[in-house]
Amino acid sequence: MAERIVKVGLVGFGTVGTGVAKLILEDGDRIAAKTGIRLELACVVDIDTKSARLVKLPAGILTDDLDRLLADETIEIGVEMVGGTDAARQVQLKMLEAGKNVVTANKALLAEHGNELYRAARKNDRCIAFEASCAGGIPIVSAIRAGLTANSITAMYGIVNGTCNYILSNMTAENEDFAAALAAAQQKGYAEADPTLDINGLDSAHKLAILASIAFGYEIALEDIFVEGIDSISKDDIRYGGEMGYCLKLLAIGQRHEHNRVSLRVHPSFIAKDSALARVDGPFNAVSIFGSAVGQVMFYGRGAGMMPTASAVVADIMDVALGNSVTTFRHLNLKLRAEVEPLIEKIDEIESRFYIKVMAKDQPGVVASYGKVLGDNQISISGALQHEGRGPDNTVPVVITTHTTQQKNMTAALNDLERLDVFSGKPVCIRIVDIPEDKD
Amino acid sequence: MAERIVKVGLVGFGTVGTGVAKLILEDGDRIAAKTGIRLELACVVDIDTKSARLVKLPAGILTDDLDRLLADETIEIGVEMVGGTDAARQVQLKMLEAGKNVVTANKALLAEHGNELYRAARKNDRCIAFEASCAGGIPIVSAIRAGLTANSITAMYGIVNGTCNYILSNMTAENEDFAAALAAAQQKGYAEADPTLDINGLDSAHKLAILASIAFGYEIALEDIFVEGIDSISKDDIRYGGEMGYCLKLLAIGQRHEHNRVSLRVHPSFIAKDSALARVDGPFNAVSIFGSAVGQVMFYGRGAGMMPTASAVVADIMDVALGNSVTTFRHLNLKLRAEVEPLIEKIDEIESRFYIKVMAKDQPGVVASYGKVLGDNQISISGALQHEGRGPDNTVPVVITTHTTQQKNMTAALNDLERLDVFSGKPVCIRIVDIPEDKD
Repeated sequence: MAERIVKVGLVGFGTVGTGVAKLILEDGDRIAAKTGIRLELACVVDIDTKSARLVKLPAGILTDDLDRLLADETIEIGVEMVGGTDAARQVQLKMLEAGKNVVTANKALLAEHGNELYRAARKNDRCIAFEASCAGGIPIVSAIRAGLTANSITAMYGIVNGTCNYILSNMTAENEDFAAALAAAQQKGYAEADPTLDINGLDSAHKLAILASIAFGYEIALEDIFVEGIDSISKDDIRYGGEMGYCLKLLAIGQRHEHNRVSLRVHPSFIAKDSALARVDGPFNAVSIFGSAVGQVMFYGRGAGMMPTASAVVADIMDVALGNSVTTFRHLNLKLRAEVEPLIEKIDEIESRFYIKVMAKDQPGVVASYGKVLGDNQISISGALQHEGRGPDNTVPVVITTHTTQQKNMTAALNDLERLDVFSGKPVCIRIVDIPEDKD
Repeated sequence: MAERIVKVGLVGFGTVGTGVAKLILEDGDRIAAKTGIRLELACVVDIDTKSARLVKLPAGILTDDLDRLLADETIEIGVEMVGGTDAARQVQLKMLEAGKNVVTANKALLAEHGNELYRAARKNDRCIAFEASCAGGIPIVSAIRAGLTANSITAMYGIVNGTCNYILSNMTAENEDFAAALAAAQQKGYAEADPTLDINGLDSAHKLAILASIAFGYEIALEDIFVEGIDSISKDDIRYGGEMGYCLKLLAIGQRHEHNRVSLRVHPSFIAKDSALARVDGPFNAVSIFGSAVGQVMFYGRGAGMMPTASAVVADIMDVALGNSVTTFRHLNLKLRAEVEPLIEKIDEIESRFYIKVMAKDQPGVVASYGKVLGDNQISISGALQHEGRGPDNTVPVVITTHTTQQKNMTAALNDLERLDVFSGKPVCIRIVDIPEDKD
């Protein structure tokens, strides 16, 4: 088969950009043999043209001048690896206007400005491919858009942030403090020097916004997603939850109910230890999806890192080069807000089970007190655990799990519990998520 | 967006055919809204035009005359749901010659005659799409062909037969005999009345032939695959293996080494209990793939059943309708045998660890005997387990696990063990597969 040459321009020569250049330059022969398409890295743009990288570029293609890439009409595909939202947005818009198809891994940008960018792509009859934006090397975007196209997707439960999962796995396995687990993650390269976006849950929310849009077919705004991070999780709660049969994960949850009612949230979640997602450890990602025809499917792999992410970027480049992405993108038929306004469930309305921990003082009436507060708020108790022995300030931890109730009932109950004299400090409350099991 | 109508003809109105018709007829609006393509079921061919099915066809489209479908030039896509290899092969060849693109779930046909059919498709400038042939609703074929295209795939480990996995899961969880577990599977509808193709491993081999072809890029013949089924597995061995930390699965294994050396096999495999595949229970399928850039990825879901399989068939139909499959198929660049002859590793040459069970008579010298036989055959022992108490005929089971050795050494050792006077009957031997762990 005759090879067709497809020229690629890359903007952003950082970690993932380097991985992409590496794959194109070092595996070009293999990819060409497999697909009939020879990728040519024609231009690499970065403000830093001096520092050494892990790949050696052909002479003359590295530049700090974006216009050089834009003006080269032979470049069909522009890969935006800039990161962040301001400059990256400009880069994507300019590349689309210059007639290039865009490949990106920028979840923050797509979550915040995706709808604007998708419109710009359509206006210019070009596409934006973004497989690498969610769950790194796992081909989850194409699975939802193509592989599961016959399905009405009703729910997704994802571990989509490797940093948080590494931290929580370590806290669980080693009974480590949050701070120590974070430091270990940083040392391993699984957490940035500034890990805020990861541990506050926002990075997971970015990915949920993208995945839920394509799975449910609505425009979804970042503000539609309730977000709670993992920074206030204590190792004790992980241990007590473990004793009750649960494992703590930061889950990104999207559910679509009838009448366009949608629930979107990212929060620490106790899930049953024997559920498939509970077994996803360390820096790995996994997403469980429920489809009307297929039932439960799960995708598992590395959600970040230079080469796994570059693997997804190059898959997208090939998909664009083969002409498939343009077709798929044309049919990325998101209903505009003007057309269908999804009814976003408020967090107060969400029904959940809960894990509560209160520090009880050594005095009579503890059980009666929390029993009454929960009962008064229409919450029924599912399990309780009180170890003998003393905690700090002569208190003992009392752990309670509840049956399903609305968040607003729980919020009221927590306020009541905090005011009770028999308890010390603020109660801890973590949602228990019962992932539906698709069993025989 | 204006809808485009794409006419589909379906041959074979059995279980999966019915599921496909159901999705097209009952979910057509949703699929059209999502993709811009309105599927029209124009013709359904089956020798049985009388029996009631779970879906009501529009009047006049059910026929026993294949020629009606072939002659209708407005039908772009022919779905072959006949099953078996003889009639189905004719149906596919005729549909291709009549200018239709073919969608199929027929793994036996593709494994045995795929290369002939692919050539016929190329000759007619048409495609064959076969996502549904492997692992039911899991979009594994497209993941390998598109999502992981930047990767050199070095290995795959799959649980690709839900019947066997259901049986082994039940034998493990309930300490059930093979016969009882098979009966339960049949009662649940997870095993056919004649389960031979499933339990003898051939169905898994069919799927491995297809997946390994596209992952490794060689023409692979069914004869290249070593196959051993699960019908002689006893619950005792599952239990003893469990005590040593292993879980028994029927694995389909494909490995590509350097210099086009390929190892392909399907056999019962003890795998570490804490490995991801060990946790795939019941009728579910999962495939772990190792790629040069992405590391380990795993795909999990229902590998069979009316609607999961129909989900994959309709995904293929949409992919063909959107024009993507034709492009992808054109680039399904399998190296012909004439071009690159993969070096298929003989089972004798394969290196593995092993689980052995011998029934030892109540007499001195047992340990020395097996120690000498294994040592003489260059096999070193990794673990051993001998419970106190008596088995049948006043014997006790002795379980030994070994370090890595070549199959031929083990075969020689088993012959020697069988001849020893201190043991009764034939030794049991099951391979232990150490799936590489892609950990931090």
